[in-house]
Amino acid sequence: MARVHNFSAGPASMPLEVLEEAAAEFVEYGDAGMSVLEMSHRSSTYQAIIDQTEQSLRSLYSIPDNYDVLFLSGGATLQFAAVPLNLMKTGAADYLVTGNFAKKAWQEAQKYGDARLAATSQDSDFDRICDLSGFAPSDGADYVHICQNNTIYGTMYHELPETGDVPLVADVSSCFLSLPLDIERYGLLYAGAQKNAGPAGVTVIIVRHDLIEEGPALSICPSYLDYREQVKSGSMLNTPNTYGIYLCGKVFDWVSRTGGLEAMEKRNWDKVQPLYDLLDASEFYQAHAQKDSRSIANVTFKSPTPELDAAFVARCAERGIVNIKGHRAVGGMRASCYNAVSKQSIEALMDCMIEFEKEQA
Amino acid sequence: MARVHNFSAGPASMPLEVLEEAAAEFVEYGDAGMSVLEMSHRSSTYQAIIDQTEQSLRSLYSIPDNYDVLFLSGGATLQFAAVPLNLMKTGAADYLVTGNFAKKAWQEAQKYGDARLAATSQDSDFDRICDLSGFAPSDGADYVHICQNNTIYGTMYHELPETGDVPLVADVSSCFLSLPLDIERYGLLYAGAQKNAGPAGVTVIIVRHDLIEEGPALSICPSYLDYREQVKSGSMLNTPNTYGIYLCGKVFDWVSRTGGLEAMEKRNWDKVQPLYDLLDASEFYQAHAQKDSRSIANVTFKSPTPELDAAFVARCAERGIVNIKGHRAVGGMRASCYNAVSKQSIEALMDCMIEFEKEQA
Repeated sequence: MARVHNFSAGPASMPLEVLEEAAAEFVEYGDAGMSVLEMSHRSSTYQAIIDQTEQSLRSLYSIPDNYDVLFLSGGATLQFAAVPLNLMKTGAADYLVTGNFAKKAWQEAQKYGDARLAATSQDSDFDRICDLSGFAPSDGADYVHICQNNTIYGTMYHELPETGDVPLVADVSSCFLSLPLDIERYGLLYAGAQKNAGPAGVTVIIVRHDLIEEGPALSICPSYLDYREQVKSGSMLNTPNTYGIYLCGKVFDWVSRTGGLEAMEKRNWDKVQPLYDLLDASEFYQAHAQKDSRSIANVTFKSPTPELDAAFVARCAERGIVNIKGHRAVGGMRASCYNAVSKQSIEALMDCMIEFEKEQA
Repeated sequence: MARVHNFSAGPASMPLEVLEEAAAEFVEYGDAGMSVLEMSHRSSTYQAIIDQTEQSLRSLYSIPDNYDVLFLSGGATLQFAAVPLNLMKTGAADYLVTGNFAKKAWQEAQKYGDARLAATSQDSDFDRICDLSGFAPSDGADYVHICQNNTIYGTMYHELPETGDVPLVADVSSCFLSLPLDIERYGLLYAGAQKNAGPAGVTVIIVRHDLIEEGPALSICPSYLDYREQVKSGSMLNTPNTYGIYLCGKVFDWVSRTGGLEAMEKRNWDKVQPLYDLLDASEFYQAHAQKDSRSIANVTFKSPTPELDAAFVARCAERGIVNIKGHRAVGGMRASCYNAVSKQSIEALMDCMIEFEKEQA
């Protein structure tokens, strides 16, 4: 069967080139006499793989030397705990709640200290990023936490909040590798890999070293989540997701050889802008996200009724367009247009949208 | 290059059949039009994969219905925290310390309550399992924790401690799928998959439901480690290691079609017994583990000097025998003879041992 048009929010489409490359060396990697899956994480062969993976990422994002890179597991959800456990040094932090995961991060942090709701766009059904003009961290906040791209609602920060000397911590899961990021604006960034960076099961963390050099803020921090110890051991306090990290490295190299992050950002906007234009011109479809808050990756929209939404999703399936149904929290449709989703897939979706709308007229 | 003889302690050899099967469907799984790596974990195709994986494991171990099965991440190390966070209901537990990981589990649990050192074999350099005759749980212990097979030292429990009504919790990472286990003897078992069950990055947990139905013992338990919530969501409180779980399913099926766990246990003892016999007959090599405590999987031994150990490891490398160096905590050599390590590989190792010993005579 031909490859489908896969708009999954994650795990998501991966570059076909990467899949084919990995398939070719799946059983036996180079002259190692074994699969990457079978390699001791303590072997020099595997050490070279993880070192190269980190180097590729450092190069893509021009990560400064005073930032550490970790490849852990457990997704953003586990980081929702790890961040306060490590960084809530005086016991307080500000949370900007712009969607479902931002809210979960805030709720999780309440287990560990005074996690303050600094601002939220919940009243407008998370259709935008909060107005940040005049934003300042609250007194004594150890960090300010944002979810930079809200996968479910299809919104994204186009400007970062000004946090002064207070570290900005960002869950960048669904915009990581979609566009350049100015790493020095952040104290810590983390991303589940399963959108743009690789397979589910790897979490990438980039953290400014001075924030973690004294160890976790809370002594109850599980060793696995102790950033300082994980940095000391090169993400190998215990056996990491060796194969997942290897695949991330292949994706990083693919991003690099297709032009890097600036080219990727341009391609991504060129891909999704026609879809947003179609939504804005239509009387039939309605975009969920407000214009100034739209995601580079997740395009959310509705037809006039839930019944028509369901019929549209079914029509898409007939055309080989899959994983287009919106999250239950917002309904309608969601087209996640990550790096590996082609312009052709988006055109196929738009053709289907236009055809379906015409039939309903 | 031919496949090497890989004695890695984990990540470890995988069955070639499994690797070849997975390679053949790596880019496109059945008629899904995508790789397993690209599947939404919420899709019916993926749900069928994880359901079948759980079913295969339940069938292999005859897991009773009142036990839940989880596929999480973070390895045994993260479970060292998860166990007390969930199960230390009155604040105390007994730890039997028979090796490095057993000790780490004990130390980690001290963060969360009164983790008592019930017995240890540290005085004899962990060359045996503690004498358990007359063992009884201490007053008020919420559970008794063991590491059933000590990978680094090459020892294994041949009898489980009698814990009465107190739940037995076991890290079974390096004997999981090596042999049958009587699940009802345990309150909870956990295993990093990277020895016998699949790739690194998946942790299998089997837990008696009544122990977790009231939720975690400690309110500071990170949501990701909340067994009750993970059970409710079918290991999908967040995106799991989808591809790793799929590979575990393939390994479970391989164990099943090669005869199941009783046949596996017999094959494993048939594989390692000649190696133990060689060690016991030799004046040159010395086994680390005492006879009544020997592992079915990890065979640890030394030559007369560290210099000869190093020379032997180098000789092995010339013969395509790799990952034979012992852990730095015990030195010497370690041959991890998991399910996918063939009799031929062990014979190659023994030939090399005999040859090397003769040269030194």
